[in-house]
Amino acid sequence: MHAVVTAVGPDNRGLADPIIHHLTSAGANLHEIQMYDRDQEHLFAMLVRAEWEDDADSATLRADLDRIGSERGLSVRTWVPGERTPPRLAICTTYRPEPATAVLRAVRDGRLKAEVSCVIGNRPTCRGVAEEFGVPFFDIGDDRGAPDNERLVDLLDEHAVDYVLLARYMRVLPAAVCWKYAGGRILNLHHGLLPPFPGFRPYEDAHARHMLTYGATVHFIVPELDAGEQIVHQATFTVPPGTPLKEIKRRGETEHEPAVLTEGVRRVLDGEVALRFHRVVPVT
Amino acid sequence: MHAVVTAVGPDNRGLADPIIHHLTSAGANLHEIQMYDRDQEHLFAMLVRAEWEDDADSATLRADLDRIGSERGLSVRTWVPGERTPPRLAICTTYRPEPATAVLRAVRDGRLKAEVSCVIGNRPTCRGVAEEFGVPFFDIGDDRGAPDNERLVDLLDEHAVDYVLLARYMRVLPAAVCWKYAGGRILNLHHGLLPPFPGFRPYEDAHARHMLTYGATVHFIVPELDAGEQIVHQATFTVPPGTPLKEIKRRGETEHEPAVLTEGVRRVLDGEVALRFHRVVPVT
Amino acid sequence: MHAVVTAVGPDNRGLADPIIHHLTSAGANLHEIQMYDRDQEHLFAMLVRAEWEDDADSATLRADLDRIGSERGLSVRTWVPGERTPPRLAICTTYRPEPATAVLRAVRDGRLKAEVSCVIGNRPTCRGVAEEFGVPFFDIGDDRGAPDNERLVDLLDEHAVDYVLLARYMRVLPAAVCWKYAGGRILNLHHGLLPPFPGFRPYEDAHARHMLTYGATVHFIVPELDAGEQIVHQATFTVPPGTPLKEIKRRGETEHEPAVLTEGVRRVLDGEVALRFHRVVPVT
Amino acid sequence: MHAVVTAVGPDNRGLADPIIHHLTSAGANLHEIQMYDRDQEHLFAMLVRAEWEDDADSATLRADLDRIGSERGLSVRTWVPGERTPPRLAICTTYRPEPATAVLRAVRDGRLKAEVSCVIGNRPTCRGVAEEFGVPFFDIGDDRGAPDNERLVDLLDEHAVDYVLLARYMRVLPAAVCWKYAGGRILNLHHGLLPPFPGFRPYEDAHARHMLTYGATVHFIVPELDAGEQIVHQATFTVPPGTPLKEIKRRGETEHEPAVLTEGVRRVLDGEVALRFHRVVPVT
Repeated sequence: MHAVVTAVGPDNRGLADPIIHHLTSAGANLHEIQMYDRDQEHLFAMLVRAEWEDDADSATLRADLDRIGSERGLSVRTWVPGERTPPRLAICTTYRPEPATAVLRAVRDGRLKAEVSCVIGNRPTCRGVAEEFGVPFFDIGDDRGAPDNERLVDLLDEHAVDYVLLARYMRVLPAAVCWKYAGGRILNLHHGLLPPFPGFRPYEDAHARHMLTYGATVHFIVPELDAGEQIVHQATFTVPPGTPLKEIKRRGETEHEPAVLTEGVRRVLDGEVALRFHRVVPVT
Repeated sequence: MHAVVTAVGPDNRGLADPIIHHLTSAGANLHEIQMYDRDQEHLFAMLVRAEWEDDADSATLRADLDRIGSERGLSVRTWVPGERTPPRLAICTTYRPEPATAVLRAVRDGRLKAEVSCVIGNRPTCRGVAEEFGVPFFDIGDDRGAPDNERLVDLLDEHAVDYVLLARYMRVLPAAVCWKYAGGRILNLHHGLLPPFPGFRPYEDAHARHMLTYGATVHFIVPELDAGEQIVHQATFTVPPGTPLKEIKRRGETEHEPAVLTEGVRRVLDGEVALRFHRVVPVT
Repeated sequence: MHAVVTAVGPDNRGLADPIIHHLTSAGANLHEIQMYDRDQEHLFAMLVRAEWEDDADSATLRADLDRIGSERGLSVRTWVPGERTPPRLAICTTYRPEPATAVLRAVRDGRLKAEVSCVIGNRPTCRGVAEEFGVPFFDIGDDRGAPDNERLVDLLDEHAVDYVLLARYMRVLPAAVCWKYAGGRILNLHHGLLPPFPGFRPYEDAHARHMLTYGATVHFIVPELDAGEQIVHQATFTVPPGTPLKEIKRRGETEHEPAVLTEGVRRVLDGEVALRFHRVVPVT
Repeated sequence: MHAVVTAVGPDNRGLADPIIHHLTSAGANLHEIQMYDRDQEHLFAMLVRAEWEDDADSATLRADLDRIGSERGLSVRTWVPGERTPPRLAICTTYRPEPATAVLRAVRDGRLKAEVSCVIGNRPTCRGVAEEFGVPFFDIGDDRGAPDNERLVDLLDEHAVDYVLLARYMRVLPAAVCWKYAGGRILNLHHGLLPPFPGFRPYEDAHARHMLTYGATVHFIVPELDAGEQIVHQATFTVPPGTPLKEIKRRGETEHEPAVLTEGVRRVLDGEVALRFHRVVPVT
């Protein structure tokens, strides 16, 4: 059995030990430990990736670790990849419906071996898309689109989500959320080539630099890292000189980005790649 | 008639006037004048793009301007696009034969409407390729590959070349050479995406930044400018995570770059784009 | 005599010839000609830098060229550096008063050999500063700060301004305005190091990249160029790790930027540097 | 007591557990755990930062951990900051003597509260400098300057070095070496501003971009990270336009870099900053 345990809490006093100790006592080999600390934000996080040579009892493990978490005031999660078949997806959206639609279609058509548990928006725009595919939609945004991030995590937990897809979700996930679902569970679609074109306006930036190729990138999110080593898939399309930005964006947003997201998700679901030590590695 | 006149000399005392004066006296409308000066290198250059409403006599014009050049100690060239049909190409090479081969094939097969006048190398490597297509090859490099740039210009002049293709030619053309053939006559194949990946090792640089797309760019060369606005064509190919650099380079060098160069040259030969005011503009 | 002639108009049909012809007929050596064209914006611009070996009559020259301009529908300006002593400055502002104040003080104290003709704002914020120094203030902004650029040029013309200082003026000057005052007459204070930190938020961008040095740059403005070769002065200050962004900005905005602007302007006024062929060159 | 334990070995099977288990059994609070893995290079590394509320016995701890290391085939080090007073430095050099000389002088004059245990070079150039200050010099390079990195680590161990200063040491430290001395013990002097000017030729690169400020940066080395968050000190000097590159390099190399290195080392020795979770944080 392979398990990813994440723990998030307000400080790092005596927090790593009980979890690590419990895992080793329970016969686990520890393959990876990462810690993260932002004193000023009172955020402490740990990820442990552990493996058992024989099958272990995931329900007992999860119950034990949850108990440790509640005793220590930590938010603890135990993820066992492959425990649920098919894996369960949450799709986060803002305005653009095309990437979410592409994933929902690919799941319906069997091209993506997964189940979409829910669509979550900080804007209500994609409600209709979700309903068209019979998937519940949750609006976590206030009047100005500011998301309720605690509600977001509650929804992911309630729906027993394996992977979170940020499908042109235009808000930054707080580090605390990322660490709760750390270990290669959050995939982001960036509408530009990374690393050269980060930021909120990659089409505009590439156009200002006179590029004739426009890209999109699917990557795992790891707080503070620049996405280079976390890239799962990226591709571009080419336009002739003089193509108006409006036409470039239309093609990118309605055709290119949805295809790139779908292929990136497929690579993860089909087990071709995984996140290890903050890097995407091919699985052989 | 449309003519591009270039003049290159050691200083700028009284040099612009006679050429400009002659052109306006000869009934030309001056569409574009650009000057360039590097005092420290004793290099002065001027480009004038002129148009006549009626047909003008290009031979007389060229003779007159050559005479002014020789009186003033200037290297003057008068290029009349379309004067020679089909247009004549020179291909500059170093080691890699694939891009040159792709252009020679496309010319032979009629996909590029041009004639290859000569292949020029600073290394003898591509001699065989040129001979295979019955095109003369000239080696302008010394033992260490340092090119004789005066010989390069002489060859271009002798062969009445319209366009110069730098097909993985790994030396920097001096500004004096670029200005002698200014006005959208020198096309370079860069083996990376511009502007994000300039330099001599774009595959290595993109790989170090963990890109999954690798590009090539065809652009006009204008000294001191960064190629952004001079891009004629660019495209990428995509690899899965973990693809070895060696495999990426093999694919890029043997398949991708040749195709990108051929398409870039085609756009210029077919008159889809032109260089105006140091920028590529679509021709409608 | 040394003169810079600029001409701006809606197209380039037959416009360069009369001006160039007049200058050569009037005994000028043409040192530099640059043209700029944006068809889509109906903007054509030309700069000619000319020199006469003997003293020439600037008033007659200006009158003749103005007449050509009005016949041809061109906006023509003839600038003779050194004609007015001391040279006359316009300072453009938005909100921050410190850089303008620093220049006004340096002029008052004789550290800058110039006269401030006017302060111009797209916001009224710096009116008090101007009045404190007895300099007229003009507000060219509408309710949202959008500047009336024709009024801006009229003010510069009426006040016979030699140099325009953009002193944390937060609007982009249209290319037409830049070309009307081309030839090294518009100096911009950028509140970050160029080229690494362009954009509107250079403090934030440098802080996000964990820099411990924060810079400011004074450069001539040439449309479409990235300011690298046009840099007149730049400097940085250093902070210890952990310094809050707020403290960095305070120090940069109230102490560092004003000093950098003043030194940049001094270099130009004292004739240490000049803009030639779009590049800053030291004057020996 | 505060201890940093590093363990480096060929794989990650069962390696984290015994060390972590021993530390927690010995009453430590685990403040930070980081792991690093490069399967392809057979390199596994772990850093544990631990604290004891009361004084603990560092000699026993070190002996116990060394024993675990030797049982498991791991290279284990236990560093207790402050254990040796004053702290002991190793200075690594290649050709340029100025930065090393500056540190040796500052130590001699009491401006740096440390002792220089040894100077190590991959070239013999700085032997004279070391001898002048009565410090042993070790040449670890072969004929072409390729360093013997195992010898480097042996020397650091034998001399009980607390901090390693890369004083224009022009070789890349392998990740294995960095992890053996991880936890904020290796300081590098980079002769350019980071992050904008990385690479081996930062003066040339900044000059090519027409900068008028030239910087140097002192940072902790953490493999795979880009040094942004690890910067301890950086500063620049300013030159007027037209300053030759040669003069810029002379000033940078002989005056600026030595001063920047000395100040960076001082900040670390005086306890003003520390490396925590791969980031430099101010110590209050």
